[in-house]
Amino acid sequence: MVPAKKPQKDDSLEIMRHSASHVLAEAVLSMFPDARFGIGPATQDGFYYDFDLPRPLTPDDLPVIEAKMKELVAADLPFTRKELSKKDARSLFAKQPYKLELIEEIADEKVGVYRQGSFVDLCRGPHVASTGELKAFKLVSIAGAYWRGDEHNPMLQRVYGVGFATEQALADYLKNLEEAARRDHRKLGKELDLFSIHEEAGPGLVHWHPKGATIRRVIEDFWKDEHFKRGYDLVYTPHIGKLDLWKTSGHWNFYRENMYDPIDVEGQEYVIKPMNCIGHILIYKTSQRSYRELPLRYAELGTVYRYERSGVLHGLSRVRGFTQDDAHIFCRFDQLEDEVAGVLDLALFMVDTFGFSNYSIYLSTRPEKYAGDTKVWEEATDTLARALERQTLAYEIDPGEGVFYGPKIDIKFEDAVGRGWQGPTIQVDFNLPQRFDVNYVGEDGQEHMVAMVHRTVLGSMERFLASLIEHYGGAFPVWLAPVQAVVIPIADRHLEYARKLEAELRSEGVRGVVDARSETVNMKIRKAQLEKVPYMLVVGDREVADATVSVRLRSGEQVNAQPFADFKQKLKGIIASRSLELKL
Amino acid sequence: MVPAKKPQKDDSLEIMRHSASHVLAEAVLSMFPDARFGIGPATQDGFYYDFDLPRPLTPDDLPVIEAKMKELVAADLPFTRKELSKKDARSLFAKQPYKLELIEEIADEKVGVYRQGSFVDLCRGPHVASTGELKAFKLVSIAGAYWRGDEHNPMLQRVYGVGFATEQALADYLKNLEEAARRDHRKLGKELDLFSIHEEAGPGLVHWHPKGATIRRVIEDFWKDEHFKRGYDLVYTPHIGKLDLWKTSGHWNFYRENMYDPIDVEGQEYVIKPMNCIGHILIYKTSQRSYRELPLRYAELGTVYRYERSGVLHGLSRVRGFTQDDAHIFCRFDQLEDEVAGVLDLALFMVDTFGFSNYSIYLSTRPEKYAGDTKVWEEATDTLARALERQTLAYEIDPGEGVFYGPKIDIKFEDAVGRGWQGPTIQVDFNLPQRFDVNYVGEDGQEHMVAMVHRTVLGSMERFLASLIEHYGGAFPVWLAPVQAVVIPIADRHLEYARKLEAELRSEGVRGVVDARSETVNMKIRKAQLEKVPYMLVVGDREVADATVSVRLRSGEQVNAQPFADFKQKLKGIIASRSLELKL
Repeated sequence: MVPAKKPQKDDSLEIMRHSASHVLAEAVLSMFPDARFGIGPATQDGFYYDFDLPRPLTPDDLPVIEAKMKELVAADLPFTRKELSKKDARSLFAKQPYKLELIEEIADEKVGVYRQGSFVDLCRGPHVASTGELKAFKLVSIAGAYWRGDEHNPMLQRVYGVGFATEQALADYLKNLEEAARRDHRKLGKELDLFSIHEEAGPGLVHWHPKGATIRRVIEDFWKDEHFKRGYDLVYTPHIGKLDLWKTSGHWNFYRENMYDPIDVEGQEYVIKPMNCIGHILIYKTSQRSYRELPLRYAELGTVYRYERSGVLHGLSRVRGFTQDDAHIFCRFDQLEDEVAGVLDLALFMVDTFGFSNYSIYLSTRPEKYAGDTKVWEEATDTLARALERQTLAYEIDPGEGVFYGPKIDIKFEDAVGRGWQGPTIQVDFNLPQRFDVNYVGEDGQEHMVAMVHRTVLGSMERFLASLIEHYGGAFPVWLAPVQAVVIPIADRHLEYARKLEAELRSEGVRGVVDARSETVNMKIRKAQLEKVPYMLVVGDREVADATVSVRLRSGEQVNAQPFADFKQKLKGIIASRSLELKL
Repeated sequence: MVPAKKPQKDDSLEIMRHSASHVLAEAVLSMFPDARFGIGPATQDGFYYDFDLPRPLTPDDLPVIEAKMKELVAADLPFTRKELSKKDARSLFAKQPYKLELIEEIADEKVGVYRQGSFVDLCRGPHVASTGELKAFKLVSIAGAYWRGDEHNPMLQRVYGVGFATEQALADYLKNLEEAARRDHRKLGKELDLFSIHEEAGPGLVHWHPKGATIRRVIEDFWKDEHFKRGYDLVYTPHIGKLDLWKTSGHWNFYRENMYDPIDVEGQEYVIKPMNCIGHILIYKTSQRSYRELPLRYAELGTVYRYERSGVLHGLSRVRGFTQDDAHIFCRFDQLEDEVAGVLDLALFMVDTFGFSNYSIYLSTRPEKYAGDTKVWEEATDTLARALERQTLAYEIDPGEGVFYGPKIDIKFEDAVGRGWQGPTIQVDFNLPQRFDVNYVGEDGQEHMVAMVHRTVLGSMERFLASLIEHYGGAFPVWLAPVQAVVIPIADRHLEYARKLEAELRSEGVRGVVDARSETVNMKIRKAQLEKVPYMLVVGDREVADATVSVRLRSGEQVNAQPFADFKQKLKGIIASRSLELKL
């Protein structure tokens, strides 16, 4: 429901990166005089260029191309701009079919071209004055990319680079990139046995393994309890429903490309739900509601399915099936500010609980195409702003970026390596209440349309787990750790005691397990470290005799033997407090 | 996965009921000389007959028909049997097209007919000697029924009756029926606002309202905690997957009529899962398993979708989408007995916790068509029997009623009005491990096939809720009650105190709510009674002054004022103990 936020841009960096893409193209041209060129824009961290080349590039080509780029930078070649008639442009790019295609799509009669050294490109610019201004860049990867992203077009070779204003910024970035690769949730998800995605079952469909499912259950319980405390009601709605409902809602018209094809059942068409809203509306409408009953807040961990091209799927963060931590609030318009303020409070409490301390808030206003009345839009947008201000939250306006059905607030949080994640979203909806006639009887005895709010605070269980894995680098805080304590008997004669501790932990809901393998203590500690288990309880003769445990923390810290009962009490306290720190 | 158990029959009762259907037909014939007759068998509690009549029957017709039946019984008409050639039978039933159709399907050259009084019927019998033997019967309802259950055939009128050996048994039955109607989960589900099913969303697709969802969540949490304690691991698997998996499993061949049509995604066919087993197998197979890791027990509250004709859907007990409390156990064959014994223990613990004290256990053996080796079947069946005997459980053998892939144990429990419900099921599967090559490396270093067990202990959340609603008559025990305590302020000045109590209850997870309406205390008590809330806390001046509550139980019992803190402690204890008794 929430389009990803556009990155915020630094213009000078963007110009530098875009210019670097031209230098990349010039370097490639020098190696492949018959190269045909696609496009070469700046990206969030650098740039890329798409090439049609006589042979596939390999990673070994990158240093060669990069060295050539450095030569061109050292030569400090000026960028010069020219305007050409389309006719002249066509003859200039006569051997460049992709450029010719682009020329035809330009509305103006004149087209701009930029030249530096031996390379000339169809380009709106702007660019740096000369190649010497390019300070710090590096080519990082090669990927296949269909021309214009369309799988029916030829596959081009895309070379990615990163570029920064200083060598230091580049070095920091590359170090961060390495750290991010270490934390990649797909890699850690496999190493820590959290989840799997199976080609034979279908891409983008996540299977949660016991350890991942344990984390999910802990989060879900926390989420449900917190929602209960804040006056939400849990509901469950089916995953399929008649297509007619989605025609009424407008989704079949506006959102069809993300929905799966209908299934025929006894002559009626059914679809798999891409959203949970309609089920909640049907529950709302099972009785005539009075103004006294409102607000009603229906919460559901609702699993939805949306079509995404297989090419864009990515681990847990871009999938085809996901469980939204969804809720819909039905309220009166005079309650909207309180409700939005309440959601903001809940959302930031949740984000904070998981340790995401950096976040940005965006208020998106009316887009060009919209449903509903301009005045209602303005009032609702003001209401959202007032709710933000009441919570003394700084926010940016994202003009025209609201959904067609209403204004919204998005919260983006950063993980420990500075990457942004789409977080909570709060959307006002003027469309569905009208289409489904969702109303209440006011104090005046008349029917009034409800104000409807869609909101998620985690987004989806899948994407949120991805962010958590990367944020914690797989070392989950104790309350979330799939295994909270491993009991390590030193010798076989300590196994009985170890089992007793395990049973005592589990009987109180603590996730303890014994490592009963015939291995050395060191090997067992090593395994627990790899699995990032927070506490290792080593038990030998002394511990058995004194009913104690010697505790080793995941951090490497050793804690002297202490009564097991004390340890258990402390551990339970740490879990209950949802502490993010590893301590004892 | 589990076919419903056949009712156990009392032959003499069945003969009596079948004879009553003939008397019913004779009575109808006396009113409608042109009546055409379908079939008239005995049922579990009585009998019916299907008629094609010149006008629709109304409930007012039933006493008239019944009076006529009583006359025929008083006349004590003998039943006489005759064998006819098909040719003679055809001429005897020349004006009875349904009978003619049945005659054509009889393989023998001779057909049997029974006559009593003016009515003669195509019938194998047996029957009572004469109508005077019919003791106690009553016509109860009229329904439409397609000839032979096929919607392409004419719709006939079916008259249902019940019949028993004594007037007392009939009276008891009718009383029970009335009680059952009062407890009907569809009726109570609406009255108590627990769930809804929407024609516009699709029949058989359940929407769980806040109160129903609360009950479900409590059961799910209990279920998950209990499974955690017993060494199960939670998993989550997607609701759709590639059709090829279901071809490999054999479901697409054997179970297709219950599966929804495939959906095309990028040229691949996907289906909505009718079962959870395949996802669990995929998770099992993500690594090479060793004998030391087994058993692995994967548990999932997995929502599945199965096609059922809309005509057979019934409230929550026969639906198209349902959440199984599913688990699959992967173990070595030498662990099978322990595992089955463990499931039996868990299953009976669960059934018992909800207060179902009457149940029957069935062990179903190898059917005519089966997969796997006869010897393996025998060993597995013996293993199931040994597990039952180890738990000292009485059971019946249901010969040949195993699933094609393995023997199974079914537990059927009875609700408070004596109706049977399909409960836990434990099925050994020789088919899937072979088809998906589900194996482990044994102590000998060789690959061995696992023993796989499918099991549910509640069946599905939907059907189980239906049984609970009817068992409790909607008056849920405290731990399950959607609202556990209503706080009733006597006057507006007590509202603040009431809100404080509500907040204190909710902060500890107790489902308390204030009835803040401007109504009298009596009206508020009446509402709470209708909603079957276990505790009503009436608070006025004295309670505010003393920090106490006056408690009224759903049973009508009044408890004198007591400190609120004491009440809260007791209530928490009652909830934690999952007590079935209403007490304080």
